[in-house]
Amino acid sequence: MICEILSVGTELLLGDIINTDAAFIAKRLSELGITSYRQSVVGDNAERLRETIGEAFSRSDLVILTGGLGPTLDDITKKITAEYFGVPLLMDESVREDLLRFFDKTGRPMTENNLLQALIPEGAEVFFNKWGTAPGIALSKEINGTLKTAVLLPGPPSECEPMFRECVTPYLKKLTNQTSYSLNLHLYGIGESRAEAILHDMMEQSTNPTVAPYACEHEVRIRITAFGKTEDECRKLCREKAKEISKTEAGKYIYTETNDPWEAKNSVVLALIAALRSRGMTFGTAESCTAGMISSAVGDIPGASDVLLGGIVSYANEVKEKVLGVPRVVLDDFGAVSEECAAAMAKGAKKALGCDIAVSVTGVAGPGGGSEEKPVGTVCFGLAFGDEVITEKVMFNRKSDRMRIRRLTTAHAMMMVIKKLKG
Amino acid sequence: MICEILSVGTELLLGDIINTDAAFIAKRLSELGITSYRQSVVGDNAERLRETIGEAFSRSDLVILTGGLGPTLDDITKKITAEYFGVPLLMDESVREDLLRFFDKTGRPMTENNLLQALIPEGAEVFFNKWGTAPGIALSKEINGTLKTAVLLPGPPSECEPMFRECVTPYLKKLTNQTSYSLNLHLYGIGESRAEAILHDMMEQSTNPTVAPYACEHEVRIRITAFGKTEDECRKLCREKAKEISKTEAGKYIYTETNDPWEAKNSVVLALIAALRSRGMTFGTAESCTAGMISSAVGDIPGASDVLLGGIVSYANEVKEKVLGVPRVVLDDFGAVSEECAAAMAKGAKKALGCDIAVSVTGVAGPGGGSEEKPVGTVCFGLAFGDEVITEKVMFNRKSDRMRIRRLTTAHAMMMVIKKLKG
Repeated sequence: MICEILSVGTELLLGDIINTDAAFIAKRLSELGITSYRQSVVGDNAERLRETIGEAFSRSDLVILTGGLGPTLDDITKKITAEYFGVPLLMDESVREDLLRFFDKTGRPMTENNLLQALIPEGAEVFFNKWGTAPGIALSKEINGTLKTAVLLPGPPSECEPMFRECVTPYLKKLTNQTSYSLNLHLYGIGESRAEAILHDMMEQSTNPTVAPYACEHEVRIRITAFGKTEDECRKLCREKAKEISKTEAGKYIYTETNDPWEAKNSVVLALIAALRSRGMTFGTAESCTAGMISSAVGDIPGASDVLLGGIVSYANEVKEKVLGVPRVVLDDFGAVSEECAAAMAKGAKKALGCDIAVSVTGVAGPGGGSEEKPVGTVCFGLAFGDEVITEKVMFNRKSDRMRIRRLTTAHAMMMVIKKLKG
Repeated sequence: MICEILSVGTELLLGDIINTDAAFIAKRLSELGITSYRQSVVGDNAERLRETIGEAFSRSDLVILTGGLGPTLDDITKKITAEYFGVPLLMDESVREDLLRFFDKTGRPMTENNLLQALIPEGAEVFFNKWGTAPGIALSKEINGTLKTAVLLPGPPSECEPMFRECVTPYLKKLTNQTSYSLNLHLYGIGESRAEAILHDMMEQSTNPTVAPYACEHEVRIRITAFGKTEDECRKLCREKAKEISKTEAGKYIYTETNDPWEAKNSVVLALIAALRSRGMTFGTAESCTAGMISSAVGDIPGASDVLLGGIVSYANEVKEKVLGVPRVVLDDFGAVSEECAAAMAKGAKKALGCDIAVSVTGVAGPGGGSEEKPVGTVCFGLAFGDEVITEKVMFNRKSDRMRIRRLTTAHAMMMVIKKLKG
């Protein structure tokens, strides 16, 4: 089955928004084993949309359209798609009731044109929209002897992504009579090329499941994807391959596994929270160059209050002294960016916050502030746990970009805690 | 002049990367007054690329291609484009020397295939690549009586974006004999529909400069864009329009102006830092639900250490008591999410950190923790300045998403400080 993604919206052509929907859907399609050769973007213009839909179906069996499903006059995707399939738009009572309920619940006033969203092409399958108002639609029909399928999704990623996951994925699995399952192995402390070298033969030989490494900013991920008739069968194939990988040299760098994109994105902080929670331990921070990025990342996760007591952002030296109790002599003799200072910060945070384990960071994030001895990218870490304090000094110098150094520092600090707790 | 953006790369079709280049270029084109009706993505496949280039030129005068300029076998953009224009690829000595210098400077080993990047279509203009290796190319030629222009750019955004800014923008200004300038007015505390209603007539009537409002998560931006022969002329048109807008009812919501994307993105924190710096004042935070997001946002900005002394992340009540000195009775009688607690937190942070002005936040970010009286989205703010403490209670209930509530809280806290300082 060949698929094409067609994104509808003048705001995309103007560059006012980035087309994350297309990347998201493309990724999911490749996970489902559906091939895609083309993506297009077209504005809210009937003539050009008509032309583009025709072109897309001349090349592909399945066209996934995003955007232009809303209640305003320039939302024309549904109308033009129904025209292509030669079916009328009919008022769908269940969608109409769903819309009325939505407006009632949110207390937002409903204008008449909102009901246009309840017009559904005849014979289409409806995906109710739990995340907004415009429902998604799937329309499948034989045209000139070939089965053509259009899937229409709302444009806002906050609606498009969950609707794809919850509604379109099962729909497409049924359509292709195939299901899939993916597992990510997260590796810290190894580069992509090294991981690739270790796994090269396995990657070449594995067709189901497939094995592919991805370099992320702070880590390497190995994605295992299996296809089959049932999810159980796919999961089993993935698990076997994961076990095989864990026995290679790459195995010792694996710190966690995930199988959904949100978990994958937050893998480090989730692993940190899980390690703390399973030990009934509380956590705190002392941050200089990251200025709260570590504690904020922990706070991103619902339920963080189980483990996070708090943090001290000690940007100025006076705060390091006054709030964290870093001795003046440490600052004078070693400087704020030193393992000695990091050790005192971690100890001070553990005491001030009353937590079981505290991590500290102090570094030169740049672009200014670097020196011969401590160039931009120099970061010192401290970890206080029981009576023990350990420190580390890392040079992040691959790219001297302030945000990147701070993000890498955040991940590294969390990994220090994870490693310590896991032994 | 009609333009089309054509992105080349199988990794885009697989969803491995998001097509930020297309959005970036689209935005710059609309600033240059160049119309674009289409964007396409195609993989590293000669046949499909050939087809897509032909289609694009059948509709447009200018096609901007990104990706596929590198040294490997699947980098075919240059070859297929040269074929379309009917010109050969020739070794360009100056590009060859530039490549040799690059590899010499970075100490990376140069393989023979890297020199393929010095092959340039006959008659093309070369954009030397200061940010990587593959040069950009512009090729302009009359085909069937119409001038057709192809601009080829490297795919990595770290090369594509600066090359567009430095090389392609002047090239296109010369091609279209036109330049432009944009100014963003940032408004806080007014909704998009209200801003649109106030400015409706002006938006309709203004053609040069154009006036367009954009709703961002926490604010409304009004973008003024002028076209003309010189930047000075354009800037003057923008300034006059900005003055006109500032006299409308929308004017009192304007808190800052920006004219580049990075400044626009960081408008609130930049306005905060500027307000503090111009008064020689220092700043600190006491954060509960945001867990360091406010201090971290300030720390994002180079030179933040001029104004940021530090912050206390007081997630747990014990930290509010112990580090910030919030009286136990306040927590018992009013709860952690209360204006009383926010006031005590701000006072405590100002004292502990020794800063001139401190802001505090404590709220229910969700998804759990809400109650009838204090539902998810309830946030209390405190501000301590001199002997004065002011508080505010805000209900962010438009969308009960944890991250969104925390981001809105961060912006609102900073805006409180900005308003206080500006009087």
